[in-house]
Amino acid sequence: MNTNKNNNTGNGNFVSKQAIKRIPFYLNYLKAAVIDGKQSISAPVIAKALNLNEVLVRKDLAAISRHGGKPKIGYDISDLILDIEDFLGYENVDEAVLVGAGHLGKALLSYRRFEEYGLEIVAAFDSDPAIIGSEIHGKKVFSAERITDLTSRLSVRIGIITVPAEEAQSVCDKLVEAGVLAIWNFAPVHLIVPANIMVQNEDMAESLAILSRYLSEKVNG
Amino acid sequence: MNTNKNNNTGNGNFVSKQAIKRIPFYLNYLKAAVIDGKQSISAPVIAKALNLNEVLVRKDLAAISRHGGKPKIGYDISDLILDIEDFLGYENVDEAVLVGAGHLGKALLSYRRFEEYGLEIVAAFDSDPAIIGSEIHGKKVFSAERITDLTSRLSVRIGIITVPAEEAQSVCDKLVEAGVLAIWNFAPVHLIVPANIMVQNEDMAESLAILSRYLSEKVNG
Repeated sequence: MNTNKNNNTGNGNFVSKQAIKRIPFYLNYLKAAVIDGKQSISAPVIAKALNLNEVLVRKDLAAISRHGGKPKIGYDISDLILDIEDFLGYENVDEAVLVGAGHLGKALLSYRRFEEYGLEIVAAFDSDPAIIGSEIHGKKVFSAERITDLTSRLSVRIGIITVPAEEAQSVCDKLVEAGVLAIWNFAPVHLIVPANIMVQNEDMAESLAILSRYLSEKVNG
Repeated sequence: MNTNKNNNTGNGNFVSKQAIKRIPFYLNYLKAAVIDGKQSISAPVIAKALNLNEVLVRKDLAAISRHGGKPKIGYDISDLILDIEDFLGYENVDEAVLVGAGHLGKALLSYRRFEEYGLEIVAAFDSDPAIIGSEIHGKKVFSAERITDLTSRLSVRIGIITVPAEEAQSVCDKLVEAGVLAIWNFAPVHLIVPANIMVQNEDMAESLAILSRYLSEKVNG
């Protein structure tokens, strides 16, 4: 990872302070484009969408992009996201994807307080054809087959697992393959992960059982 | 609380070991009757429902009940539940009521793993007329106005709060009034409770924020 912060880009160009202020807007827009299924994008399209001067956007992207754009096609969106994050010099730890849009998944997707912490679940995945393609609280539900592809293209590093126990390990493997570094696991299974992956287990039944046990000790001796 | 375990009842009667084995069945049946909105019940009705000999049931109930039954009406169900639990000599720590049948409430009501721990959410409450009277995973949703009445009649000691922050304290007060001794609080507020009440806070946003913070420290230094 490139952690230089002196505004020198990987391709030797200099990025102005004004451009740096625009970068978060590019990033948000590009991630939304990935969610919308777009593969590539041109500077004029971005300029129009963000109401910015086209020449300016062209210059910003040329400075930041290591992969470069192609004539008429524009930039590969996934590459451009990687280049921007590389330029920013830090991993994305504010976004998560969620797998398993059942009751608990829906509850988490609808949970407004994540925003207060600057956190966002950017996409959901499920294997049920009845809900693939639907939106839950404004978040799109994609086919579970797209977990690895889409998560890596969004460069999301946090995965939330709310699938049944028997599916959790295979979902976990796909998330790790996609580059996820931290997993919030609601499935009641011990997940096997590489040493560098963090797993935080959240067992609802265990939590209520602990409360019940404390209470029992207190009142029933 | 009567904690004698020598089979002597509060009214001086002796209860056989066979009767003691029947008591859990009476208790389950009586709680279901409360959920169904029944106020009183007679020995013959219980005998028929549980496929037991009527004389036997009459004898069991007469021995256990401190409050006694009334001719033609039978036993007040709430009194009988209290008498049975008094006789058993321990507080009910396996059952809970839930207030707030939104996404998270529904997720908890549908959560099958509580059963593995011998725990059960026996009733739910909500203030939304659209879902009052409905069933979620076989659990009835009652009007929030009935929290205190029904929770105390079921002698449930655990309350789960899944309402928005601004409603949580008033719900908490009603649960405490009903005799609840432990609260599992998902609302992002500090609940004010008497000293003898346990509160276990579960803050989903905080949990994800902790994961995000750990990850950030690890990858972004």
